[in-house]
Amino acid sequence: MTEELTGNVLVAQSGGPTSVINASLAGVVTEALNHDCIEEIYGALNGVEGILTEQLIDLANESQQNIRGLCHTPGSALGTCRYKLKSEQDFDRAIEVCKAHNIRFFFYIGGNDSQDTADKISKHAQAKGYEMRVIGIPKTVDNDLVVTDHCPGYGSVVKFLCSTIRELALDHESMGNHDLVSIVEVMGRNAGWIAAGTSIAKRRNQPEDAPHIILLPEVAFDAAYFVSQVQEVLKKNKFCLVVASEGLVDSNGNYVTAGSAQDSFGHSQLGGVGDYLQKILNDNMPSVKVRTCKPGHSQRAAAHCSSLTDSNEAFMCGKKAVQAAVAGESGKMVALVRGDSDKYVCETVLAGLSDVANGVKHFPESWISEDRIGVSFQFNKYILPLLQGEVKVPYENGMPSYVRLSKTRVPQKLAPYTLA
Amino acid sequence: MTEELTGNVLVAQSGGPTSVINASLAGVVTEALNHDCIEEIYGALNGVEGILTEQLIDLANESQQNIRGLCHTPGSALGTCRYKLKSEQDFDRAIEVCKAHNIRFFFYIGGNDSQDTADKISKHAQAKGYEMRVIGIPKTVDNDLVVTDHCPGYGSVVKFLCSTIRELALDHESMGNHDLVSIVEVMGRNAGWIAAGTSIAKRRNQPEDAPHIILLPEVAFDAAYFVSQVQEVLKKNKFCLVVASEGLVDSNGNYVTAGSAQDSFGHSQLGGVGDYLQKILNDNMPSVKVRTCKPGHSQRAAAHCSSLTDSNEAFMCGKKAVQAAVAGESGKMVALVRGDSDKYVCETVLAGLSDVANGVKHFPESWISEDRIGVSFQFNKYILPLLQGEVKVPYENGMPSYVRLSKTRVPQKLAPYTLA
Repeated sequence: MTEELTGNVLVAQSGGPTSVINASLAGVVTEALNHDCIEEIYGALNGVEGILTEQLIDLANESQQNIRGLCHTPGSALGTCRYKLKSEQDFDRAIEVCKAHNIRFFFYIGGNDSQDTADKISKHAQAKGYEMRVIGIPKTVDNDLVVTDHCPGYGSVVKFLCSTIRELALDHESMGNHDLVSIVEVMGRNAGWIAAGTSIAKRRNQPEDAPHIILLPEVAFDAAYFVSQVQEVLKKNKFCLVVASEGLVDSNGNYVTAGSAQDSFGHSQLGGVGDYLQKILNDNMPSVKVRTCKPGHSQRAAAHCSSLTDSNEAFMCGKKAVQAAVAGESGKMVALVRGDSDKYVCETVLAGLSDVANGVKHFPESWISEDRIGVSFQFNKYILPLLQGEVKVPYENGMPSYVRLSKTRVPQKLAPYTLA
Repeated sequence: MTEELTGNVLVAQSGGPTSVINASLAGVVTEALNHDCIEEIYGALNGVEGILTEQLIDLANESQQNIRGLCHTPGSALGTCRYKLKSEQDFDRAIEVCKAHNIRFFFYIGGNDSQDTADKISKHAQAKGYEMRVIGIPKTVDNDLVVTDHCPGYGSVVKFLCSTIRELALDHESMGNHDLVSIVEVMGRNAGWIAAGTSIAKRRNQPEDAPHIILLPEVAFDAAYFVSQVQEVLKKNKFCLVVASEGLVDSNGNYVTAGSAQDSFGHSQLGGVGDYLQKILNDNMPSVKVRTCKPGHSQRAAAHCSSLTDSNEAFMCGKKAVQAAVAGESGKMVALVRGDSDKYVCETVLAGLSDVANGVKHFPESWISEDRIGVSFQFNKYILPLLQGEVKVPYENGMPSYVRLSKTRVPQKLAPYTLA
C-alpha cells in the first residue's frame, strides 16, 4: 500500500436506514474535502445497485446547508438496497465502474451484510490488480456487529423508545383503575439489544418502574412463565408494560410468529409479536385489558428524538474512515472503542472487514437478569452514555425540517448493466 | 348567581389522557392562586371515582416546579377514570363530598362523556340547593367536541404523527427498490380528525408526498376501491403510505374490525385496522411488501413532540375556567374560537355544558376530497396553526424528565363509600 494514491471517493449506504446513517455520510464528505489526494466525491444511489448501474451523484456539488442538514436527517439520503452482489460478473462490473470513474477510496456504510459486501469488493479489486482502498463504516439499530463496542444508530433508537415508554407509563399510570397490560413490540431480528436498551427507561431503577418485563430473542419464550410473570407484576402494579423483541423464539429456536416470507438474504420477515402475546394473555387472563404499540420502522427513523452522542459518533466514523483510507488502510471497518475511565470516552480503531462480515453479536448472557425478563446493572452502565444529548432538529411549519440531496448526476461512461 | 361566593376549588381529570391535559390543570392552579375568594385548591384522584371515595389532594402544597412541569408532562397527573356516575346515590354522594370540603368551584377536564358528567353534577347541586359553580375544560385528542373550534390535545397528537410520517417517508424513500405499502394506524374512534390531520405532513402538498391515502371513519371502507387506489399510487411512487383511522367502518356502519368487547360507556374496543388492511393487500397484491406501524397510546402521550400552541391553549382553558367561575358563571364549558383574520388568533368563549355533552363533531363532509382518500385545502388552513411551536421538554440522563405530583392527601371527613 502506498500513501500517495490520488483519485476519487465513492460512498454508498446499505441495509435498513437509521436516524444517524446520514451523519456518517456527512462525516465522509466533510473529511474528504480536507485531502488533496481526493479529487471528486461521488455517492452511489441505492447502495451496490447504484454502483452496478452506474447511478452516481456528485456530492461536492451539494450545498453546505444540505451536508450540514444530513446530520439530523433520517432515512438513507443516498438510498439503500438489499441487493446482494451475486455473481463473479457483478463483482467484475463493480470494479469496472470504479475504474471508469477513477474511484480509489470506497466507503460503505452498513451492517454485517454490507461489511461482507465491502470485504468481497475489496478482495475482488485486489485480485484484479486495481488499487482501491475500501473502508466500512458501521451502521445498525440492531447493535449486533462484532468487534465494535456499539453501532451508530443504536443509541438513537433506544433514546426514542425510552422516551415513548416513559410517556406510555405516565399514560397508563393515570388510568390506574384497571388491570392493564401494555405491549411494545420493538425491532431486533437476531439480537435483543434494542429491547434490552429500553430497561434504562426505568425512572429510579425500581421494580415498579416500567418496563416491567423485557422479552429477548436470546431467551427462549415460555408462554406459561410469561403469563405468571405478568400476573406477578399486576399484583403490585396497576399496569404491566412488556417490551418484546420482534425476533422472539421458542425453545426450538423458531420465531414464535414465523411466517413463510423471506427477504433476499434469506432472513425471515417478522412482525406480529405484539399480537401474538396479546392473544396469549387474552386466552389466559380474560379480565385484563391488553394494548399493543408497534412503532415499526418509525423507531429507526425517529430523528426528532435522536441522541447527540450517537449522531456525533456516526459523524466521527465517517471522518475516521476517510482518514484511514488516505493513510493507506484498506479492507477495514471503523470500530468504536470505549475508554476504561468512569467518564465515557469513545474512540475509533480499525477492524478487519472479514472479522466483522456476517458475524452477529448477541446480547451477552451475563447481562441477562436471573429472572430472564430483565437486564443487569452492568448493562445499564453500558447503555446510558449512548443516549446522552439531544440533536437539535430545525422545525418548519410545526414539523421537523429534513434535507433532501439535490443529486447532480455524474455522467455515465459505460454501457448499461442489467441486474440479475 | 352571586359574585361573592367564597370557598374551595376542586379540579379533576377524566377520560383518556393527552400530551397537554396537565397544562390545563396547571392553568387552573395558577389562576386559582390569584383570587381571594378561593381558599383551598384540591384535586380529586382518578376523576369522579376520587370524588365519590373522597380521595382528594392539596394542590396548593405542590412545589412551583411541579406545577410548571405539568405543562410538559403527559398522562393525567391526577389520574383519570372511565367510571360513569350511575345512580341518584352516586350524585348525592358527589355533592355530599363537595359540601364536606366546602367546594364552591368545580372544574372537570375531559371529553364529551366528561362534560356530560359535569353537566349532571351541576344540575344535581342546583336541585339540592348547594351553590357550586361547575365549569368544564375541553380535552380530547379526537377533536370531536361540538361548539369548540378545536380541542386541546389535538394539535399535539397531529404534530407527533406528522413528524413520524415525515420520518417514515424518508425511510421508505431510501428503500426505493421495492414496492412497499406502509400502513400507519392512528386513533379516532368516531371521527377522522386525527387521520385527516396527518395530511399536513405532505411536504409540498403534492400528490407524490406522503401520506398518499387517508382512510377516515366518515367514509365507508370499500376494499376493492382501496386496492385500486394503492395500485394507482404505486404506479407513480415506489411506496404508498396509508394512514388509517382505528374507527374505520364498512358500508353498513360497522367497524371493519369489530370485536365483541365494549368499555363501560358501551364503546367498542377497537384495534387491528392495520392488520386488517395488511391482509387485504397481501391477498390482492401478493408481490407487494406491507409494513404496519401502530403508535397506539404512545401518540396521545408523546409530549416530547407536542405543540406549543396546543399546550398554551390548554393552559389558557384552565385559567379561563377559573376566571369564569369566579365571575359567577356555571354549567358552562370553555370553548376555543378562532379569529377571522389571516393571522391565527385563538380566544375562549363559554358554551352550555348540555350543548356539548355527548355530542360528536364528525370531520366535515365538505373537507373530504373528491377521491375520498384525502382532505381539502380548507382543512389544511384549519390544522396548520394548531401544530406551531415546540414545547421545550427538559432532558435528564438522555431521556425526557417529567414531573409526578407529591399528592398530599386532604383528610377525609365522611364515611367510606363503595363504588357500584
